[in-house]
Amino acid sequence: MSLDTVLARIDAELPAATERLLELLRIPSISTDPAYADKCDSAADWLVADLASMGIDASKRPTPGHPMVVGHVDGAGPHVLFYGHYDVQPVDPLELWDREPFDPAIEDTPNGKVIRGRGAADDKGQLMTFVEACRAYHAVHGVMPCKITFFFEGEEESGSPSLIPFMKENAEELKADLALICDTGLFQSRTPAIMTMLRGLLGEEITITGPDKDLHSGMYGGPAMNPIRVLTKILGGLHDETGRVQVPGFYDGVPELPAEIAEQWKALDFDHGAFLGDVGLANPAGEADRSALEMIWSRPTAEINGIIGGYTGEGFKTVLPSKASAKVSFRLVGQQDPHALRESFREWVRVQVPEDCKLEFKAHGNSPASQISTDHPAFEAARKALTDEWPDPAALAGCGGSIPIAGYFKTYLDMDAMLVGWGKDDDQMHSPNEKYDLESFHKGIRSWARILDAIAPGPDGEN
Amino acid sequence: MSLDTVLARIDAELPAATERLLELLRIPSISTDPAYADKCDSAADWLVADLASMGIDASKRPTPGHPMVVGHVDGAGPHVLFYGHYDVQPVDPLELWDREPFDPAIEDTPNGKVIRGRGAADDKGQLMTFVEACRAYHAVHGVMPCKITFFFEGEEESGSPSLIPFMKENAEELKADLALICDTGLFQSRTPAIMTMLRGLLGEEITITGPDKDLHSGMYGGPAMNPIRVLTKILGGLHDETGRVQVPGFYDGVPELPAEIAEQWKALDFDHGAFLGDVGLANPAGEADRSALEMIWSRPTAEINGIIGGYTGEGFKTVLPSKASAKVSFRLVGQQDPHALRESFREWVRVQVPEDCKLEFKAHGNSPASQISTDHPAFEAARKALTDEWPDPAALAGCGGSIPIAGYFKTYLDMDAMLVGWGKDDDQMHSPNEKYDLESFHKGIRSWARILDAIAPGPDGEN
Repeated sequence: MSLDTVLARIDAELPAATERLLELLRIPSISTDPAYADKCDSAADWLVADLASMGIDASKRPTPGHPMVVGHVDGAGPHVLFYGHYDVQPVDPLELWDREPFDPAIEDTPNGKVIRGRGAADDKGQLMTFVEACRAYHAVHGVMPCKITFFFEGEEESGSPSLIPFMKENAEELKADLALICDTGLFQSRTPAIMTMLRGLLGEEITITGPDKDLHSGMYGGPAMNPIRVLTKILGGLHDETGRVQVPGFYDGVPELPAEIAEQWKALDFDHGAFLGDVGLANPAGEADRSALEMIWSRPTAEINGIIGGYTGEGFKTVLPSKASAKVSFRLVGQQDPHALRESFREWVRVQVPEDCKLEFKAHGNSPASQISTDHPAFEAARKALTDEWPDPAALAGCGGSIPIAGYFKTYLDMDAMLVGWGKDDDQMHSPNEKYDLESFHKGIRSWARILDAIAPGPDGEN
Repeated sequence: MSLDTVLARIDAELPAATERLLELLRIPSISTDPAYADKCDSAADWLVADLASMGIDASKRPTPGHPMVVGHVDGAGPHVLFYGHYDVQPVDPLELWDREPFDPAIEDTPNGKVIRGRGAADDKGQLMTFVEACRAYHAVHGVMPCKITFFFEGEEESGSPSLIPFMKENAEELKADLALICDTGLFQSRTPAIMTMLRGLLGEEITITGPDKDLHSGMYGGPAMNPIRVLTKILGGLHDETGRVQVPGFYDGVPELPAEIAEQWKALDFDHGAFLGDVGLANPAGEADRSALEMIWSRPTAEINGIIGGYTGEGFKTVLPSKASAKVSFRLVGQQDPHALRESFREWVRVQVPEDCKLEFKAHGNSPASQISTDHPAFEAARKALTDEWPDPAALAGCGGSIPIAGYFKTYLDMDAMLVGWGKDDDQMHSPNEKYDLESFHKGIRSWARILDAIAPGPDGEN
C-alpha cells in the first residue's frame, strides 16, 4: 500500500524531477580538465543544497582535488550508503554534438523521449534516480525508509585520486551495512542487472622524444630517428594477430569463467551482432577464441585511447617531430595486479626504445577488478523488486566498465556493494550526444523506491 | 673593377636590405592553411612592388591557388630565370617559439647576428639575396647584368599544385637559358654548395574509421576494433629492424652511388656525429649498411610526419575512438616513380585493414628526384665565383630536401637549373625559432653579384 503511494508520487513528480536533473546537467563539471575545477565545486554545492532541502544533514568536504559531498539521515532498519559521482567526461570532439553538451533538453526520438546532454547517463541522471526516490518516500512518509548515508564523488572520470585517502580518514563516518551504487546499465537495454563482476582499470601515458626539436624531414629524414616511428612500432606490437596482449605476464591472474556463470551468461543469449552493429562494426576484435560477452565482462583488454605527434593540422608539413605520445589503458579482471602490470608494461616499452630517444611515463590511476559477494539478503530482495518493475526478470551480470569504488568499499570499509543502474547500450556515455532515456530516469526512480521498500522495515517498522 | 663597386654598394646597403627583408617576413604567408590565403596574396603584392621599384616589369599572376609573381627585365648576354618562393611553413607548436614568428628581428647570438622569424631562411631571406644583388648592380650600372626573368611561387610549402599548369601555360614566357634557384644551403654550414642531386617527395594522408562514433572503452573495449590499434600496427611495420622500408617495390629505381661521386662525398668528410649531435641524437637511424651522408642525399626514406587519434588533451579519457589518421611522406631518389609508389603504398595499407574498418587516403603532392646536369658553362663559372667569396672551395653536393622545381624546369621548359643557397644546418627551417644568419644574407647577396658578374658579359659587353 505505502509503496503504491510512493510510486504514484514519483509518477506525478516526474516533470519536476526532470527539471532538477536538467539544472544539475547545466553545470559543466569536467573533472579531468583543471580549467573546470570551479564548475565541479558548483555541482557539489548544488547537491548539498538539494539534499539539505529534504532534511538531510549534508556538506561539501574538501579534498586535494574536487570536493566530496557527504549527507546523513537517520532512519529505522539497515544502514545503507548510496554512492554516485557528479563529475563528467570531457566533451570533445565538440563538433560531433548536435547540441551544446551543457545545454541539456528533453528530445523526442523514434525510441521515445531522451534527456540529452553530457552526464545525463554518466552519472548525474543515475545519481538523481536514487535522490528522487528518497525525496518521494520522504514526501509521503515524512521520514526516510532507513538510515542512509549519501556519498557523492567529483573525480570518478579522472582516476579518483582523493577517494581512498578520504575513505580512510572518514572510515567510521562512511561505514554502513551495505553500499548501493548507481553507475551501471540494463543488460542489452532491456534486462535489469545487478553487477557481480567489474573490470579494473590501469592508465598509462607514454611520451617519446627523439630529436630535441622539430626537424625538416628533407634535411634530417633518414639519419634522424622519428619518435612517431618508435611509438607506432611499440604500440603496433601491443596485440598479436589473435588479439592477445603481448605485455609479459599480462594474463597472470586472469581466471577461467566458472562453469555455472558461463552457463548463466549463455542463457542471456547476448546478441553481439546487434551490439556491434549499433556502432557500425561486425566482427568481435578481442581474443580469437573468446565470446563477445567474455570480451566485455571477463577478459582483460589493452586500448590506445589517444595518440598524437607531429603536424596534425590542415594540409601537410614535412616535419620530423621531436615528440610523440600516447595514452594507453588496460581493463583488468580476476587477480590481475595493476601495480605489477604497470611495471611490466613500462619495462616492455623501455626495452623497445632506441638509446637515442628519451622516454617518459605518466601514471593515470589504477584499480583492480572486483568480484561482488551476493550473500547479503538485500541482493535477493533487490532482484525480486527489480523483477516487479521491469518486463524481464533481473540478471546477475558482469560489467566491462571499471567501478573501482565497489572494491574500495570492500577493502577499506569491509562493506559489500550492490551495483544496479538504468543506462542503455546506446546512451553514448563518454561520446558526443550522450543521453539518458526518460524511461530509464522514471523507472530508475521507481526501482529504487521498490528496492528501498524491500530492504527497509517500512515507516511503521513492519515489512 | 665594376664588381668591386657592386660589392662595396652591397656592403653599404646591408642595413637597408635587411629592413626590406624584415618587412617581407612580417607577412604571415602560410600557404598550407587556407586561413592565410589573403596573406599569401599580400606577400605577392609586396614582391611585385619591390621589383617594379627597380624598373622590372613585374606582375601578380592568378592561379587556382596562391598567385605567382613574374617579372622581366632586359639585358645583354645570357637569359637567366631566377626562382624562389614567398610562402612559408606553419608555425606550430607556437609555444616553442621564443618570439612571435611573424615579428622578426635581428638577434645577437654566440655565433653572430641572426635574422629570427618564420621564412627567414626558407625561403624569403634566400630569395631576397638575389633581388638585393640585382638592386645593387642596377644602382651601380643603371642596367641589369643580363636578361633576367623573376619567378616567385607561393605554394612551395604545400605541394605546388598550380606550378606545373602555370609553367605549361606560360612556357614561352618563362623559358630561359638557365634557371637559378636559391632554396638550399651551405654544406656543413661552411662550404658553398651547388646541388646536383635532389630527392623527390611523395605525401599521403591515411584515415582509418572503426566504430561510427567514439565509444566507452569499458563498455566496448575488447569486442570493438580500435582504429588507433589498426593504424599503429600498420605504421609500426613501415620499417624493418634494419631501417629498410617495407612497402613492396619501394627500392625499385634506387641506384647505387657512382664510384666517383662516392669518392667525392667521402672527401667532404661529413661529421655525422656533429650533425646529429646538434639535434640531440647520436646514431644514424636509416638503413643499417649506409653512411649518414647517403641517408640524406642518395637514399629514399619513409617518415610519419603526423599522427592523431582519440583523446589527446589534459588528463585521461577512456575513449575507444572512431577515427585515427596519419600523414606519411617519402623522400625519393633516382628513378623511383611517385605514382607507382603511391599505389603500392595504398595497396600495402589496404590489405592490412580489417574489413570492419573504413579506409580513406588523401594525396598530398608528389615529385620525382632530380639529377642536375652541370654541363652549362655557368656551373664552372659559379664554382669559381663562390670559391672567391667563401673560405672553402665550392662543392658539388646532394640535397636531402625536395626542390621539384628543378626537375620541372627540365621537363616542361627543357631548361637546366643551378641550385645554390646560403642556409645553415641550424637554421631550424620548418621548426620553431627559424633564423637566417646575417652573414648568410650578406655573403649570399655578394655571392649572387659574383655569379652574375661571372656569367654575364658585364655592363660594357666585355667579360
